[in-house]
Amino acid sequence: MKIVVMGGGTGSFAVLSGLKKYPVSLKAIVAMTDDGGSSGVLRDEMGVLPPGDLRQCLVALSESPEVMREIFNYRFSRGRIRGHNLGNLLISALEKIKGGLDKALPHINDILVLKGEVIPVTYDKVRLAAKLENNKVLIGEHKINASKLLKKQHLKRLFTKPEAWANPRAIKAIKEADLIVIGPGNLYCSLLPIFLISGIRRALKKTKAKVFYNINLMTKKGHTDGFSIFDFVEKMEEYLGKDVIDYVIFNNKKPPRAILSKYSSQGEIVKFPKYKAFKKSGKIYIGRNLISNNLYTQKKSDSVERTLIRHDSGRLARAIIETYDEYKNKKKID
Amino acid sequence: MKIVVMGGGTGSFAVLSGLKKYPVSLKAIVAMTDDGGSSGVLRDEMGVLPPGDLRQCLVALSESPEVMREIFNYRFSRGRIRGHNLGNLLISALEKIKGGLDKALPHINDILVLKGEVIPVTYDKVRLAAKLENNKVLIGEHKINASKLLKKQHLKRLFTKPEAWANPRAIKAIKEADLIVIGPGNLYCSLLPIFLISGIRRALKKTKAKVFYNINLMTKKGHTDGFSIFDFVEKMEEYLGKDVIDYVIFNNKKPPRAILSKYSSQGEIVKFPKYKAFKKSGKIYIGRNLISNNLYTQKKSDSVERTLIRHDSGRLARAIIETYDEYKNKKKID
Repeated sequence: MKIVVMGGGTGSFAVLSGLKKYPVSLKAIVAMTDDGGSSGVLRDEMGVLPPGDLRQCLVALSESPEVMREIFNYRFSRGRIRGHNLGNLLISALEKIKGGLDKALPHINDILVLKGEVIPVTYDKVRLAAKLENNKVLIGEHKINASKLLKKQHLKRLFTKPEAWANPRAIKAIKEADLIVIGPGNLYCSLLPIFLISGIRRALKKTKAKVFYNINLMTKKGHTDGFSIFDFVEKMEEYLGKDVIDYVIFNNKKPPRAILSKYSSQGEIVKFPKYKAFKKSGKIYIGRNLISNNLYTQKKSDSVERTLIRHDSGRLARAIIETYDEYKNKKKID
Repeated sequence: MKIVVMGGGTGSFAVLSGLKKYPVSLKAIVAMTDDGGSSGVLRDEMGVLPPGDLRQCLVALSESPEVMREIFNYRFSRGRIRGHNLGNLLISALEKIKGGLDKALPHINDILVLKGEVIPVTYDKVRLAAKLENNKVLIGEHKINASKLLKKQHLKRLFTKPEAWANPRAIKAIKEADLIVIGPGNLYCSLLPIFLISGIRRALKKTKAKVFYNINLMTKKGHTDGFSIFDFVEKMEEYLGKDVIDYVIFNNKKPPRAILSKYSSQGEIVKFPKYKAFKKSGKIYIGRNLISNNLYTQKKSDSVERTLIRHDSGRLARAIIETYDEYKNKKKID
C-alpha cells in the first residue's frame, strides 16, 4: 500500500513514526514556507530552502543507528550558533555542497537509511502571506504564526509570495497513492501552505487515493480559538474543495483537567461530538483516544511554542490503517 | 606494521592520506591545544574540547562515501555561523550528546568508516602557553601562533596551562608502535604541544619504534625564520631529548621561483644540505622531492594562514615506508 503524508513539523513526525511500523510504502510531502527559528536564519543567511520541516520527516523515516538521529535532532544551546539545529545545518550544507536541495536529498536519504521518501512540496523559494479582512497583508510564516490577528473573522485568504509550482515528485506521489494523510499540524502554517502550491489541489482532486484528515488535539490561540472538529474540516475544505476529504480522524478523549489548565495561555482541546463513528457531508468521521500517555514538557525549539500533550503515533497510525481497511471496499457514502 | 602519526592540521592530513594506502595499522595522536578559529569559538562557547585537528585526521583516515567527507570539511561562509566547520560542529555536538569526547569518538569512527584510530593526546582542557626571554607569558595557541615574538632568541619555553596528562590510549599506541611519524606541522602550535603533555616524552623514550621526523617545507614568519632542517631538529630535540629521533625526512627540491616569491610575506623554503642521504648525530637524514605538483590556492580556513605549496602525501608516505624498509634491519648508527 502506498501512503502519502502531507504536513510538516511534529504532526508529520508523529504520523510517520506510527505508519513506519506497518508494511507500507511511505512518502512525506512537506511544507516549504517555514521562515522562523533556525530555518528562517538559514534561509536568510545562506539562501537555502527551509530545512526544519524536512528534517522532522527525515528523522521520522530514518532507520539509521540511533546516533545519526540524535545528531539530526541536536540543538545548540549556547553561543553564536545557539538555536540552530544540527540536522538543519547538515541539510543546508549539503544543499550548498551538491548545488541544490534536489541533489542533496538522495545523499541525506543514504545517510539516514530512509524508509520511504521525503518530498519538498516545491523547490521554489516562497513565503507564506496572509491577506486580512482589513486588507492588511502579513508576509512570512513566522510572522503569521505569531500573529494574534488570525481569528476566523479576520483572515481573508492565505497565499504564497510569489506563486510557487509543485515539485513533480509530489504530484506523482499523490497520483500513485492509495491513501493520503493530511495533518495533524499547524493549520495555517503547516497544512494549508502545502495546498497553496500550484498543482497540489488539482492532483488531490484527481487522485483515487482515500484522503484522511487528522484533526489537531488542541486549538491554537489567535488562530483556531473555539474550533470544533467541524470548523477544522470547514476551513480545510475552503482551500481543498468539498470533494477531497474522505475520512476525518479525531481525538475523543479529554485529557486530565490538571493538564488542560496548563493550556490556558495557548489553546484548548478541540471540541468534538460524542459519537465514535458517523457520516456527515460525504465524509466518515472516526473518533478515538489518540492522546499519548507520555506527556511532554515544553522544549525551546525553533522558537515555536510546543504543546504539552501529543498524538500517540501508534494510536494515530492504527486509527488510520484500521479505518482504511474497514472501509476500503465500501463505496463513498453521502 | 603499526604506525603512529603525531601532529595535527594539514600536515597530519597529508601523512595519513599517504600512509592509508599501505597495508598498515594507523593511529593518529592529535594535539589538543587549538583555541583559534572555529575550534576556539566552540571551546569558549560550548565548553567542548577543540575538534579541528581531530577532524582533519578523521577525514584523512575515513573510508566513507565521499559525501560524508564533504560534510565534515564543509565550512559555512555566511551569517552568524560563518567560519564554523560542519565537521567541528558534528564532533562537538556528539561530545555533548554522548557526555564526553571519549564516548563520542567510537560513533564518529563508525560514521566515517575509519581506517585506523584518531587519539586525542589528552582529554584535559589545556591551553598552550609560551614564556618569553623577557619573562612575558603568552597564553593561548591562537595568540602564540599569530605572535611575531617567537623568533629563536625570544622564546624561553613552551608549556601547557594547566599541566595535562596523556590519554592512556596514546601511551599504549606509542608503546606498541613499530614506526612513529612526527610532523610535518606547525612546530610551536601543532607538534611541540603534543610533547608537553605529561607521559608522552617518557613513552617516546621507551618505545622500540623507529621515530621519523618530517621537516616542514617552509619556515613560518616570526616562528622559524631562517631555519635549516638542522634547526628544526635541534628545536625538536630541545623538547624530546637527543635519543628519540631516528630518521629525518626533508624536502630537497626547490619550488619554482615564481611560487617562492608569493611566500615573501609568510616564510621561505627551509634550508637543506645538498646530500640525499647522510648520517649526523645518530640520525639518518633522507632528502627527497616531497612537494605536491598540485599547487594550492590559499583558503580561508580556521582563520589560519595556509601555505601555497604542500607535501605530496604519496611522496611523503613512500619516503617514510621505503626508508623504514631499507634501514629496519640495520643497527642504529652513530
